[in-house]
Amino acid sequence: MIKKINHVGVAVKDLDKAVSLFENAFGAKVIFRKVFEDQKLESAMVSMGENRFELSQTIDPDGVMGKFIESRGEGIHHVSLQVEDMEKAIAHFENQGLKVVGKGTVGSGGNKICFLHPKDIFGVLIEIIEPAKG
Amino acid sequence: MIKKINHVGVAVKDLDKAVSLFENAFGAKVIFRKVFEDQKLESAMVSMGENRFELSQTIDPDGVMGKFIESRGEGIHHVSLQVEDMEKAIAHFENQGLKVVGKGTVGSGGNKICFLHPKDIFGVLIEIIEPAKG
Repeated sequence: MIKKINHVGVAVKDLDKAVSLFENAFGAKVIFRKVFEDQKLESAMVSMGENRFELSQTIDPDGVMGKFIESRGEGIHHVSLQVEDMEKAIAHFENQGLKVVGKGTVGSGGNKICFLHPKDIFGVLIEIIEPAKG
Repeated sequence: MIKKINHVGVAVKDLDKAVSLFENAFGAKVIFRKVFEDQKLESAMVSMGENRFELSQTIDPDGVMGKFIESRGEGIHHVSLQVEDMEKAIAHFENQGLKVVGKGTVGSGGNKICFLHPKDIFGVLIEIIEPAKG
Protein backbone atom coordinates (compact mmCIF):
# COMPACT_ATOMS: atom_id res chain seq x y z
CA MET A 1 0.00 0.00 0.00
CA ILE A 2 2.58 2.54 1.17
CA LYS A 3 5.86 2.24 -0.76
CA LYS A 4 8.05 4.47 1.41
CA ILE A 5 8.35 7.80 3.19
CA ASN A 6 8.79 10.16 0.23
CA HIS A 7 9.85 13.04 2.47
CA VAL A 8 9.46 14.74 5.83
CA GLY A 9 8.33 18.38 5.55
CA VAL A 10 9.81 20.90 8.01
CA ALA A 11 8.64 24.50 8.53
CA VAL A 12 11.61 26.82 9.10
CA LYS A 13 12.02 30.56 9.52
CA ASP A 14 15.23 30.88 7.50
CA LEU A 15 15.52 28.57 4.50
CA ASP A 16 19.15 29.47 3.68
CA LYS A 17 20.19 28.60 7.23
CA ALA A 18 18.20 25.36 7.20
CA VAL A 19 19.63 24.21 3.87
CA SER A 20 23.18 24.96 5.10
CA LEU A 21 22.65 23.00 8.29
CA PHE A 22 21.16 19.98 6.50
CA GLU A 23 24.04 20.05 3.98
CA ASN A 24 26.77 20.41 6.59
CA ALA A 25 25.39 18.24 9.38
CA PHE A 26 23.67 15.49 7.39
CA GLY A 27 25.33 15.55 3.96
CA ALA A 28 22.03 16.57 2.33
CA LYS A 29 22.01 17.41 -1.40
CA VAL A 30 19.59 20.00 -2.80
CA ILE A 31 17.37 18.43 -5.50
CA PHE A 32 15.44 21.62 -6.23
CA ARG A 33 14.58 24.91 -4.61
CA LYS A 34 11.46 26.75 -5.70
CA VAL A 35 8.97 29.48 -4.80
CA PHE A 36 5.33 28.34 -4.76
CA GLU A 37 3.45 31.64 -5.14
CA ASP A 38 0.03 30.00 -4.69
CA GLN A 39 1.05 28.55 -1.31
CA LYS A 40 3.09 31.64 -0.36
CA LEU A 41 6.17 29.60 0.47
CA GLU A 42 9.64 28.72 -0.75
CA SER A 43 10.80 25.12 -0.46
CA ALA A 44 14.05 23.24 -0.85
CA MET A 45 13.78 19.49 -1.43
CA VAL A 46 16.97 17.79 -0.19
CA SER A 47 18.02 14.16 -0.42
CA MET A 48 19.47 12.41 2.60
CA GLY A 49 20.44 8.91 1.61
CA GLU A 50 17.36 6.99 0.49
CA ASN A 51 14.85 9.61 1.70
CA ARG A 52 14.20 13.32 1.43
CA PHE A 53 13.39 16.34 3.57
CA GLU A 54 11.37 19.29 2.28
CA LEU A 55 12.42 22.49 4.05
CA SER A 56 9.92 25.36 3.65
CA GLN A 57 9.80 28.99 4.70
CA THR A 58 6.91 31.35 4.23
CA ILE A 59 7.17 34.28 1.84
CA ASP A 60 4.16 35.94 3.49
CA PRO A 61 3.17 35.93 7.20
CA ASP A 62 -0.39 35.04 6.13
CA GLY A 63 0.78 31.99 4.16
CA VAL A 64 0.24 28.45 5.42
CA MET A 65 3.82 28.09 6.75
CA GLY A 66 3.72 31.56 8.32
CA LYS A 67 0.57 30.67 10.23
CA PHE A 68 1.95 27.27 11.18
CA ILE A 69 5.13 28.77 12.64
CA GLU A 70 3.19 31.50 14.42
CA SER A 71 1.00 28.95 16.19
CA ARG A 72 3.37 25.98 16.66
CA GLY A 73 6.89 27.28 16.07
CA GLU A 74 9.39 25.74 13.70
CA GLY A 75 9.25 21.96 13.34
CA ILE A 76 7.82 19.09 11.36
CA HIS A 77 4.88 20.15 9.22
CA HIS A 78 3.96 16.90 7.45
CA VAL A 79 5.13 13.41 6.49
CA SER A 80 4.71 12.44 2.84
CA LEU A 81 3.91 8.79 2.09
CA GLN A 82 4.44 7.48 -1.43
CA VAL A 83 1.85 5.33 -3.20
CA GLU A 84 1.79 3.82 -6.67
CA ASP A 85 -1.83 4.57 -7.54
CA MET A 86 -3.44 7.72 -6.12
CA GLU A 87 -7.00 6.86 -7.16
CA LYS A 88 -6.84 3.43 -5.49
CA ALA A 89 -5.25 4.98 -2.40
CA ILE A 90 -7.96 7.66 -2.06
CA ALA A 91 -10.73 5.07 -2.48
CA HIS A 92 -9.07 2.94 0.21
CA PHE A 93 -8.67 5.83 2.68
CA GLU A 94 -12.27 6.95 2.21
CA ASN A 95 -13.45 3.38 2.65
CA GLN A 96 -11.58 3.44 6.00
CA GLY A 97 -13.52 6.56 7.01
CA LEU A 98 -10.57 8.95 6.70
CA LYS A 99 -11.02 12.53 5.52
CA VAL A 100 -9.06 13.13 2.29
CA VAL A 101 -8.24 16.80 1.65
CA GLY A 102 -7.13 18.38 -1.63
CA LYS A 103 -8.09 15.52 -3.93
CA GLY A 104 -7.00 16.09 -7.52
CA THR A 105 -4.08 18.37 -6.63
CA VAL A 106 -1.15 18.21 -9.02
CA GLY A 107 1.99 19.42 -7.27
CA SER A 108 5.49 20.32 -8.32
CA GLY A 109 6.77 18.38 -11.35
CA GLY A 110 3.41 16.73 -12.02
CA ASN A 111 3.24 14.72 -8.78
CA LYS A 112 -0.29 13.84 -7.68
CA ILE A 113 -0.84 14.76 -4.03
CA CYS A 114 -3.54 14.88 -1.37
CA PHE A 115 -3.63 15.07 2.41
CA LEU A 116 -5.16 13.11 5.29
CA HIS A 117 -6.54 15.28 8.07
CA PRO A 118 -4.37 15.27 11.25
CA LYS A 119 -7.43 14.72 13.47
CA ASP A 120 -7.72 11.22 11.97
CA ILE A 121 -3.98 10.41 12.23
CA PHE A 122 -3.10 11.28 15.85
CA GLY A 123 -2.13 14.87 15.10
CA VAL A 124 0.10 13.99 12.13
CA LEU A 125 -0.53 15.75 8.81
CA ILE A 126 0.03 13.04 6.19
CA GLU A 127 0.63 13.95 2.56
CA ILE A 128 0.00 11.17 0.06
CA ILE A 129 2.08 11.41 -3.12
CA GLU A 130 2.12 9.55 -6.40
CA PRO A 131 5.28 10.80 -8.09
CA ALA A 132 5.05 11.79 -11.75
CA LYS A 133 6.17 9.01 -14.08
CA GLY A 134 9.59 9.29 -15.74
CA MET B 1 26.55 10.31 6.00
CA ILE B 2 22.82 9.63 6.56
CA LYS B 3 21.74 6.30 5.07
CA LYS B 4 17.96 6.70 5.38
CA ILE B 5 15.08 7.65 7.64
CA ASN B 6 15.02 4.67 10.01
CA HIS B 7 11.63 5.66 11.42
CA VAL B 8 9.29 8.49 12.35
CA GLY B 9 8.26 8.45 16.01
CA VAL B 10 4.68 9.43 16.87
CA ALA B 11 3.29 10.09 20.36
CA VAL B 12 -0.25 8.71 20.70
CA LYS B 13 -2.75 8.43 23.53
CA ASP B 14 -4.08 4.97 22.60
CA LEU B 15 -1.52 2.57 21.15
CA ASP B 16 -4.06 -0.15 20.25
CA LYS B 17 -6.09 2.36 18.26
CA ALA B 18 -3.00 3.78 16.55
CA VAL B 19 -1.69 0.34 15.55
CA SER B 20 -5.09 -0.60 14.13
CA LEU B 21 -5.31 2.58 12.09
CA PHE B 22 -1.79 2.20 10.68
CA GLU B 23 -2.52 -1.45 9.82
CA ASN B 24 -5.87 -0.76 8.20
CA ALA B 25 -5.17 2.57 6.50
CA PHE B 26 -1.54 2.11 5.48
CA GLY B 27 -0.96 -1.65 5.41
CA ALA B 28 1.56 -1.37 8.28
CA LYS B 29 3.00 -4.58 9.77
CA VAL B 30 3.97 -4.75 13.46
CA ILE B 31 7.66 -5.66 13.80
CA PHE B 32 7.67 -5.60 17.61
CA ARG B 33 5.66 -4.15 20.46
CA LYS B 34 7.33 -3.62 23.80
CA VAL B 35 7.11 -1.83 27.16
CA PHE B 36 10.18 0.26 28.03
CA GLU B 37 9.89 0.58 31.82
CA ASP B 38 12.84 2.97 32.08
CA GLN B 39 11.23 5.41 29.65
CA LYS B 40 7.71 4.77 31.01
CA LEU B 41 6.30 4.05 27.58
CA GLU B 42 5.03 1.29 25.34
CA SER B 43 6.02 1.32 21.67
CA ALA B 44 5.01 -0.53 18.53
CA MET B 45 7.48 -0.44 15.65
CA VAL B 46 5.60 -0.91 12.37
CA SER B 47 6.95 -1.25 8.85
CA MET B 48 5.38 0.69 6.01
CA GLY B 49 7.09 -0.28 2.79
CA GLU B 50 10.77 0.66 2.98
CA ASN B 51 10.46 2.73 6.19
CA ARG B 52 9.06 2.42 9.68
CA PHE B 53 6.91 4.32 12.17
CA GLU B 54 7.36 3.98 15.93
CA LEU B 55 4.04 4.54 17.71
CA SER B 56 4.41 5.22 21.45
CA GLN B 57 2.02 5.75 24.34
CA THR B 58 2.98 6.64 27.88
CA ILE B 59 2.43 4.14 30.69
CA ASP B 60 2.76 6.95 33.28
CA PRO B 61 1.55 10.59 32.99
CA ASP B 62 4.99 11.70 34.27
CA GLY B 63 6.82 9.76 31.54
CA VAL B 64 8.44 11.51 28.58
CA MET B 65 5.54 10.75 26.19
CA GLY B 66 2.95 11.73 28.82
CA LYS B 67 4.60 15.12 29.28
CA PHE B 68 5.01 15.56 25.52
CA ILE B 69 1.31 14.91 24.86
CA GLU B 70 0.27 17.14 27.76
CA SER B 71 2.22 20.08 26.36
CA ARG B 72 1.96 19.55 22.57
CA GLY B 73 -0.80 17.03 22.02
CA GLU B 74 -0.49 13.87 19.95
CA GLY B 75 1.80 14.07 16.93
CA ILE B 76 5.30 13.51 15.65
CA HIS B 77 7.80 13.16 18.47
CA HIS B 78 11.05 12.53 16.58
CA VAL B 79 12.61 11.50 13.27
CA SER B 80 15.26 8.78 13.43
CA LEU B 81 18.12 9.00 10.93
CA GLN B 82 20.23 5.91 10.30
CA VAL B 83 24.05 6.05 10.18
CA GLU B 84 26.63 3.34 9.66
CA ASP B 85 29.15 4.46 12.30
CA MET B 86 27.82 6.16 15.45
CA GLU B 87 31.22 7.28 16.76
CA LYS B 88 32.11 8.99 13.46
CA ALA B 89 28.64 10.55 13.30
CA ILE B 90 28.88 11.98 16.83
CA ALA B 91 32.36 13.40 16.16
CA HIS B 92 31.02 15.01 12.99
CA PHE B 93 27.94 16.53 14.68
CA GLU B 94 30.02 17.95 17.55
CA ASN B 95 32.51 19.34 15.04
CA GLN B 96 29.52 21.15 13.45
CA GLY B 97 28.65 22.67 16.83
CA LEU B 98 25.54 20.57 17.41
CA LYS B 99 24.51 19.40 20.88
CA VAL B 100 24.49 15.59 21.07
CA VAL B 101 22.31 14.21 23.88
CA GLY B 102 22.37 10.69 25.32
CA LYS B 103 25.70 9.60 23.88
CA GLY B 104 26.47 5.95 24.57
CA THR B 105 22.83 4.89 24.81
CA VAL B 106 22.13 1.32 23.70
CA GLY B 107 18.48 0.97 22.76
CA SER B 108 16.14 -1.88 21.98
CA GLY B 109 17.83 -4.87 20.34
CA GLY B 110 21.33 -3.46 20.79
CA ASN B 111 20.88 -0.44 18.52
CA LYS B 112 23.20 2.48 19.32
CA ILE B 113 21.24 5.72 19.61
CA CYS B 114 21.67 9.38 20.52
CA PHE B 115 19.71 12.59 19.92
CA LEU B 116 20.36 16.02 18.46
CA HIS B 117 18.73 18.86 20.40
CA PRO B 118 15.66 20.36 18.64
CA LYS B 119 16.91 23.91 19.26
CA ASP B 120 19.73 23.20 16.79
CA ILE B 121 17.50 21.54 14.17
CA PHE B 122 14.61 24.00 13.69
CA GLY B 123 12.43 22.43 16.36
CA VAL B 124 12.87 18.85 15.13
CA LEU B 125 14.04 16.20 17.61
CA ILE B 126 16.42 14.03 15.59
CA GLU B 127 17.35 10.54 16.81
CA ILE B 128 20.53 9.11 15.32
CA ILE B 129 20.59 5.31 15.13
CA GLU B 130 23.22 2.74 14.24
CA PRO B 131 21.24 -0.51 14.06
CA ALA B 132 22.72 -3.56 15.78
CA LYS B 133 24.60 -5.79 13.36
CA GLY B 134 22.98 -9.04 12.24
